Amino acid sequence: MTATYACPPGFKARFEAFSEIGSTGDGGVHRMEATAANGKAREQLVAWLKEEGFEVRIDEVGNIFGLLELAGPDAPWILSGSHIDSQPQGGRFDGAYGVIAALDAAIAVRDKLASEGSAKANLAVVAFSGEEGARFNTFMGSKVYMGGATAEETLNQKDAEGIVARDALEQIGFLGTDTPPPYPNAFVELHVECGSSLEEINARLGIFERWWGAHKLDIRFIGETSHTGPTPMAKRKDALYAAAMMITGVRGLADAAQVGSLHTSVAKLLVSPNSRNVVPDSATGFVEIRSPDPDVMADNIARVTPIVENAAKTAGVGYEIVRDDLRRPGVFDVELGDLARSIARDLGEEPAGVTTLPGHDAIMMSEVSRCLMLTVPSRAGLCHHPDEFTDMEDLELGVAWLATILDRLVTAPPAAKG
Amino acid sequence: MTATYACPPGFKARFEAFSEIGSTGDGGVHRMEATAANGKAREQLVAWLKEEGFEVRIDEVGNIFGLLELAGPDAPWILSGSHIDSQPQGGRFDGAYGVIAALDAAIAVRDKLASEGSAKANLAVVAFSGEEGARFNTFMGSKVYMGGATAEETLNQKDAEGIVARDALEQIGFLGTDTPPPYPNAFVELHVECGSSLEEINARLGIFERWWGAHKLDIRFIGETSHTGPTPMAKRKDALYAAAMMITGVRGLADAAQVGSLHTSVAKLLVSPNSRNVVPDSATGFVEIRSPDPDVMADNIARVTPIVENAAKTAGVGYEIVRDDLRRPGVFDVELGDLARSIARDLGEEPAGVTTLPGHDAIMMSEVSRCLMLTVPSRAGLCHHPDEFTDMEDLELGVAWLATILDRLVTAPPAAKG
Repeated sequence: MTATYACPPGFKARFEAFSEIGSTGDGGVHRMEATAANGKAREQLVAWLKEEGFEVRIDEVGNIFGLLELAGPDAPWILSGSHIDSQPQGGRFDGAYGVIAALDAAIAVRDKLASEGSAKANLAVVAFSGEEGARFNTFMGSKVYMGGATAEETLNQKDAEGIVARDALEQIGFLGTDTPPPYPNAFVELHVECGSSLEEINARLGIFERWWGAHKLDIRFIGETSHTGPTPMAKRKDALYAAAMMITGVRGLADAAQVGSLHTSVAKLLVSPNSRNVVPDSATGFVEIRSPDPDVMADNIARVTPIVENAAKTAGVGYEIVRDDLRRPGVFDVELGDLARSIARDLGEEPAGVTTLPGHDAIMMSEVSRCLMLTVPSRAGLCHHPDEFTDMEDLELGVAWLATILDRLVTAPPAAKG
Repeated sequence: MTATYACPPGFKARFEAFSEIGSTGDGGVHRMEATAANGKAREQLVAWLKEEGFEVRIDEVGNIFGLLELAGPDAPWILSGSHIDSQPQGGRFDGAYGVIAALDAAIAVRDKLASEGSAKANLAVVAFSGEEGARFNTFMGSKVYMGGATAEETLNQKDAEGIVARDALEQIGFLGTDTPPPYPNAFVELHVECGSSLEEINARLGIFERWWGAHKLDIRFIGETSHTGPTPMAKRKDALYAAAMMITGVRGLADAAQVGSLHTSVAKLLVSPNSRNVVPDSATGFVEIRSPDPDVMADNIARVTPIVENAAKTAGVGYEIVRDDLRRPGVFDVELGDLARSIARDLGEEPAGVTTLPGHDAIMMSEVSRCLMLTVPSRAGLCHHPDEFTDMEDLELGVAWLATILDRLVTAPPAAKG
């Protein structure tokens, strides 16, 4: 049994200070990727990393790494972190908690192991760029780091205002040129649950064992502008009308499915020209189909096409698939889960095995590294909302858990992912 | 019989030069109210008015009047014009044609009557602010001039970016302080048809005899943000889903009605936070119900409320009516229509009596003045689109018609509206 860690005493103040950056004044933060507020959060993180003696590296898509070379240049790496971008008017825990926790845990581990001389691996902290997908694509940073997208295509993306990701990152001073550290043998991400499973069974700690799949389809309907007054109804080519039929159709899929087997949404819609007197010639709906079951996913994805085709036909418009991005359901590393369970018990808690429905950087990282995802309760399951909340006692317990796990991984590193 | 006018030779060059301001490069213009491009168009108009000796007045909502005091300070006024704002990526004829035509016609009338000394009324040209409603409310300028709205409420409006109308007008230098001229005895607006009635019967000139009513309802659905991944479907309060049901429901009203008796649209939709992973907590749809028949209007407006209520209930959200603005169907001045018909025959054309489905400043002005609306064909009825087109021969014929009518109104002014 490894001696367990306590939460470092400075964590609370650090987390609270970080929550002020881009604060919406009602408990939330508004820190979308590469905005000014996101830039301030990045600068604060880098300042803390430097103060604490980490080697800071900013890579070409703005991922921030803080490196502690504890065991020499040829030793394997252990990585921990999450993201610090937020949804618009989002919560202050989502992402940021895992980064600040990793920072304080890594400092504690470094300080303890330095005196013991027992490190067999190096340790790094990461804040991945643009996990939320609120401004640019989801998993912007981790997807490039793990090789699932090129920096080129990622940086060429435009936000809704037409601002290019490269320019936005450059504007805040985080278009880096540093080489990121090698793929770690283990990646550990601590994150608030963004769901209510833990709260429902009164558990304080959870281990994400699996993740839901998510199919993201951006469908653009293409009509023709005309005046909403005189144009005969039969001659209208109304892209928004088609999108509305798609939205109700996609919702119908989830309403018809067994509860908990399928979640669907169209939460973002871009309409052009979006003027009250002009029949819209373009409407792009961002469809999501989510399920833990690959068969349910495949079945329902197959049902989207007829919905879209029927909507286009009824409205007299065309359509194109702008993006088609499937994240299959999957499982996190079982051995790391066992380690985390054992250490939770050392801390006096029985952790629950849970499933994550939202995506996380650890899902991306699972392609190249063993991954462990730890979680603490979200009050009422709320997420992406200023009322998102986790008790400070649970947050601190999570940090102690993470620090103890990182200690074990650094002193007895697992083999690299096979 | 009054001698008929020819189109002034400079009209074509003036209209073409004006079409370059805010040009989209494909025949269209992008000159929404109080934008930089709209400001340039306003400056050009004012420059021409001053060159030609008009007294220029800019009132408190930016309406531009060019006055020719032909018959002394106590004589009645005759007013002609339209608007120079456009829809986004709109056409170059809509509005601008009627202003440039009024300018050139007024110059010709002034020059002829000065030599004859026969003017019994004064003559003014007007470009009303923000007719299109693409950025601020429809009929922004004419509605304040005729007393249907206060300058205060009009200037306090915000556009989609939160920019206040007052600030936008000030920015382009058109927040004026001049007193507008008194209500005219007659207002004459020349406008492209924005419909295909003339083209269908091969008529080159048309007289709008009546206008469709329009009910504009801005409905905001109010839900709650949550994560599109984990939030159980039954717990979602999805404002966009409600709006989608309203859009299809409102469309259904028109589809169920007799062809040509009812047009409906939801062409603008504002979604918040409009992020793909966040269930939207707000969606505002801009509903229009249009009909020539007051009973059909009333009947269908009554059907909107159950559609909205059912959508809100099904999506588990609330709603509020942000704006409720009814423009009843109506008729233009019959005597002025007869005069226009007689003069068209003098020009060798039989004008068609037609109905306008879009709204125009002349509808607002009908509350305080006799109004005459003249029109020329729109190719394929296209409007609010860069392909909007009218032959130069028809445009020039319209200017000649307008000039001859203005001559008659200035030399034999009709009584003021009773």
